[in-house]
Amino acid sequence: MAKLEAYDKTLDYSYAPGIFPATECLKNAPERCLRLLLSSASEKSVGAQALREAAQAEGIRVEIADRALERISKKENCFAAMVYKKSEGVFSADAPHIVLVNPSDSGNLGTILRTALGFGLTNIAIIRPAVDSDDPRVTRASMGAAFSLNIRHFDSFDAYRAEFGSRQLFPFMLTGAVPLAEATRKVTGDYSLVFGNEATGLPDVFATYGISTLIPHSDRIDSLNLAIAAGIGMYAFTNRQEA
Amino acid sequence: MAKLEAYDKTLDYSYAPGIFPATECLKNAPERCLRLLLSSASEKSVGAQALREAAQAEGIRVEIADRALERISKKENCFAAMVYKKSEGVFSADAPHIVLVNPSDSGNLGTILRTALGFGLTNIAIIRPAVDSDDPRVTRASMGAAFSLNIRHFDSFDAYRAEFGSRQLFPFMLTGAVPLAEATRKVTGDYSLVFGNEATGLPDVFATYGISTLIPHSDRIDSLNLAIAAGIGMYAFTNRQEA
Repeated sequence: MAKLEAYDKTLDYSYAPGIFPATECLKNAPERCLRLLLSSASEKSVGAQALREAAQAEGIRVEIADRALERISKKENCFAAMVYKKSEGVFSADAPHIVLVNPSDSGNLGTILRTALGFGLTNIAIIRPAVDSDDPRVTRASMGAAFSLNIRHFDSFDAYRAEFGSRQLFPFMLTGAVPLAEATRKVTGDYSLVFGNEATGLPDVFATYGISTLIPHSDRIDSLNLAIAAGIGMYAFTNRQEA
Repeated sequence: MAKLEAYDKTLDYSYAPGIFPATECLKNAPERCLRLLLSSASEKSVGAQALREAAQAEGIRVEIADRALERISKKENCFAAMVYKKSEGVFSADAPHIVLVNPSDSGNLGTILRTALGFGLTNIAIIRPAVDSDDPRVTRASMGAAFSLNIRHFDSFDAYRAEFGSRQLFPFMLTGAVPLAEATRKVTGDYSLVFGNEATGLPDVFATYGISTLIPHSDRIDSLNLAIAAGIGMYAFTNRQEA
């Protein structure tokens, strides 16, 4: 990592742009932090100075890097970015999973990660092909939530099932057999909420993988936005009444 | 409306860009449609040709307008846009309202409108200052849902309360007194779900306006995204169990 490059998914490091995401990275994943980049203008920012001091206290190199920040962030006035080492998450046992099958939109993915952390759902499986969860746009949209989550990648849903197929699976589908409120009452142990791609949803075969779940809505829209559907599903399952 | 201008909120017309939103405009608000703009390339699109025929059947002028489409849509390959007359909605009686206080993000607003239509919540109050609900970016994000909704604007929340203050108000707040599931069981008649601005939420005084409602989440995030919170609230209230 001599010269900092514009982000590319083949790099083994990425950037958390913005004071808030960079601070979340430092606070929740200090062992992954490589360098803190600050802009010359960051001297005016109280938040940036607090971040600088916290990074120095952790022994993390701090540098003024206006050019690199411009390359990393298309937004103006990016005061700070943390350079961090990518790392594959490890799931905690006996906890629910959120499984995202082929998510393609960075804003949606970031919003889903933030929502998941809000509902205490910290184990996230991403089935490839998928938008890169270390893309700085995802990190920004997640407000840095990604650094508090265990995010694991799988090359196929079959690979996920091979390891976790004994859990209760709840694939969210427009053709789901069980309405959401009823589905939440069927939980008996470890479970996984499974959401499909923004445009295509989940393939029909997923209906055979578990309790296919429907969020009832009128036929005046084709479907709910993915992040909205995932948010409703996560809320309903984590606030369910016991059977 | 001689020469079609790039969209500006002071115009009395706007554009629904994209085949799907333009079709929704024609289907659900034909009386507001002024002209259909098509790109030269639209001849290759089955959807665009169906839209052209439907517009002609309604007696709406159709024209090839590549330059205007480029001005209107920053996206490439915009095959069509409907030029439509802006119009203030009229609320239907005895129905729930969604009240958006100072929403500022076009993507969020569009997503909320689409979600509201999905849950059959067709009366939407927008409290100014607010992002322009006729901005083509809102229309695009809503997938044209706006044309099936009654959207009314108010200059202040006091103006809304003066007319609708006798309804049950449920302001969604981080400091809400009543958890969402419990709040939904308090509905006894007409009600309004009230959501604040993306960055600032609702001012504290809203807690005195009705049943302030909390979506429980962990303190590991500052707040849920506005569209996510609104989606969860709309789902919970329209799928509530009667008290």
